Amino acid sequence: MLGHWEESRYAEVLVEVETQITTFDSINLDCGVTLGPIDCAYETYGELNQNRTNAILITHAFSGDAHAAGIEKIGGQLGWWDNMIGPGRAFDTNKYFVICANVLGGCKGTTGPSSKDPATGKPYGMGFPVITIADMVRLQRKLTEFLGIPKLLAVAGGSMGGMQALQWAVQYPDAVAASIPIASTARHSAQQIAFNEVGRQAVMADPDWNGGDYYIGKPPARGLAVARMVGHITYMSDESMRQKFGRRTRENDDIFEVESYLRYRGSQFVDRFDANSYLYITKAMDLFDLTHNGEKTLTAALESASTRFLVISFTSDWLYPSYQSQEIVNALRRRNHDVAYCELESNYGHDAFLVQVNEQTELVKGFLAKTFKELNR
Amino acid sequence: MLGHWEESRYAEVLVEVETQITTFDSINLDCGVTLGPIDCAYETYGELNQNRTNAILITHAFSGDAHAAGIEKIGGQLGWWDNMIGPGRAFDTNKYFVICANVLGGCKGTTGPSSKDPATGKPYGMGFPVITIADMVRLQRKLTEFLGIPKLLAVAGGSMGGMQALQWAVQYPDAVAASIPIASTARHSAQQIAFNEVGRQAVMADPDWNGGDYYIGKPPARGLAVARMVGHITYMSDESMRQKFGRRTRENDDIFEVESYLRYRGSQFVDRFDANSYLYITKAMDLFDLTHNGEKTLTAALESASTRFLVISFTSDWLYPSYQSQEIVNALRRRNHDVAYCELESNYGHDAFLVQVNEQTELVKGFLAKTFKELNR
Repeated sequence: MLGHWEESRYAEVLVEVETQITTFDSINLDCGVTLGPIDCAYETYGELNQNRTNAILITHAFSGDAHAAGIEKIGGQLGWWDNMIGPGRAFDTNKYFVICANVLGGCKGTTGPSSKDPATGKPYGMGFPVITIADMVRLQRKLTEFLGIPKLLAVAGGSMGGMQALQWAVQYPDAVAASIPIASTARHSAQQIAFNEVGRQAVMADPDWNGGDYYIGKPPARGLAVARMVGHITYMSDESMRQKFGRRTRENDDIFEVESYLRYRGSQFVDRFDANSYLYITKAMDLFDLTHNGEKTLTAALESASTRFLVISFTSDWLYPSYQSQEIVNALRRRNHDVAYCELESNYGHDAFLVQVNEQTELVKGFLAKTFKELNR
Repeated sequence: MLGHWEESRYAEVLVEVETQITTFDSINLDCGVTLGPIDCAYETYGELNQNRTNAILITHAFSGDAHAAGIEKIGGQLGWWDNMIGPGRAFDTNKYFVICANVLGGCKGTTGPSSKDPATGKPYGMGFPVITIADMVRLQRKLTEFLGIPKLLAVAGGSMGGMQALQWAVQYPDAVAASIPIASTARHSAQQIAFNEVGRQAVMADPDWNGGDYYIGKPPARGLAVARMVGHITYMSDESMRQKFGRRTRENDDIFEVESYLRYRGSQFVDRFDANSYLYITKAMDLFDLTHNGEKTLTAALESASTRFLVISFTSDWLYPSYQSQEIVNALRRRNHDVAYCELESNYGHDAFLVQVNEQTELVKGFLAKTFKELNR
């Protein structure tokens, strides 16, 4: 027999969610292009309070989508951050109204390169304009306005999600009370650009990519799989790979388990991600630099941010190393911004933000409670 | 006007070398296959002394070749470790007879997958047998016997070269007085295997690879270029990439310099390396494990080695991190083996063993002088 807590928890887990789509006329992009119409796929969890002061926007990482929590009505898939979003969890849906949207340029319901270009009636492909993290945030702002939220309690996300959380604080300082960038950076480094570029080159080296025009043929499955394999290595750590695979072999000792795992994850990715979205979104990450390539200092770039910050990094994350989070923290502290920082011990590498829940939960819960109290004072 | 030292140094640099090839009837491989005939491409620098006690074998890294020092007679290329090998340098050719040979499975004169299979008259391609680091060392032993050297003063190399230096000590303990593994490991880790596997998958994803049968057509240039790009990222460090490229752009700001660099290095590699050699040699590295996948401890594996050791690693090398060198050192110390270890400060990542010459020179010089003295006592 289940106890009361387990029963209620069990009941929560069964909560079904459906991604919704709303359409905006157009959006003005950093590159100068006005793009439209724009579909925006999103999910919400919990209830908006009467004062509309309890809304939290969750921003997803590179290959994420709007389905952050709950069970998908069709497909039965659990949300990618379900361990952090739900009743009693870090982003407590008993208290907060949580929103997650697929980013601009994505392939999970929001307009991206695989969407139909109204001018031609065919998918945009490489005719899709260059997009930036700021453009993604622009679309999210339209969504929160559409949902009737004047000011978000917080924007929170890991990796590319953290870039959006930072960008929100800079771009709409009056429309967000707190920013929670996790395992992220204020600007992509040469090494981060390099890893993304290898992925892009792998996609474009596949003849099936065909200049981005493959929607009536077959997608560049082999190239995209190789790109994803590179990604997976960077998401883990030397230590977590040792623990998970070591030098163990399978299939008559011919294949190392780590090889088999990477091949599987690579081939699996092809079924759920669009190769052109891969190109556009990784480029947006590479272009991300709050200092505008050194035009101003990070301190100056963050000057206008009136939000509170909770910055989290992980010891074994070598893709978004702690020093990048510390740069943000130091820049904020130089101007006496309200910033809390924690570097969490972890073996999981960059993946830690998705799997290492307990300490993140504690940090996020306390931070949100305090922010909510101040916002509703 | 050049001073005396500069003049003599200048004269040295003009020393021209030519790769030589000798052929052996056959070689028995770890996989059970007897392969033959085997060409072995090698170069020598300096003179063998009368006692034949001053010979040093330099073992090359993954994409290296026999041309370690001097200027190539045809082509004018400087050797890949010329800054370490020559008169007065770490491997002082005024004192020592230095040998370097292209590894078994290579594509620079030694028999490999691109060589003609005498049974078919066509290149081996994927019909080439699986080879190991021990097989490479077996061929090197044949070469040193052919050159009339009963016992090497030392075997020295970085990265995969270091694996060969370790393997020599275990496989032919009576035929080598000292082993100098630099930026290397006693066994490839899951992460190291993973990076190699991504490279292999990139090659094999290229339709031009054609199951390894591309010698009459065009080689899998795009796949091999992507593989090499991954490699280059792992050879550098986050810090060295920041210093070298930062977020600088070129071509109307459309391309980051790091992207341009990687594309160039990738495309350049295709002209000088065989894709099937890429597959076979990376596999040999992945299979390398002195403990035979944990069958014995590293201490037990190194028990029989009667050589002296100089182990060198670099602080910023994240591909072959210092802890892997320290594992070797600790295993040797447990049995009171004669081992010197130094972790050198460096920003250059794994590439440090090729470029950070001064401290390596000091360490190697002293170590070789002492070994030579003991061997000739």
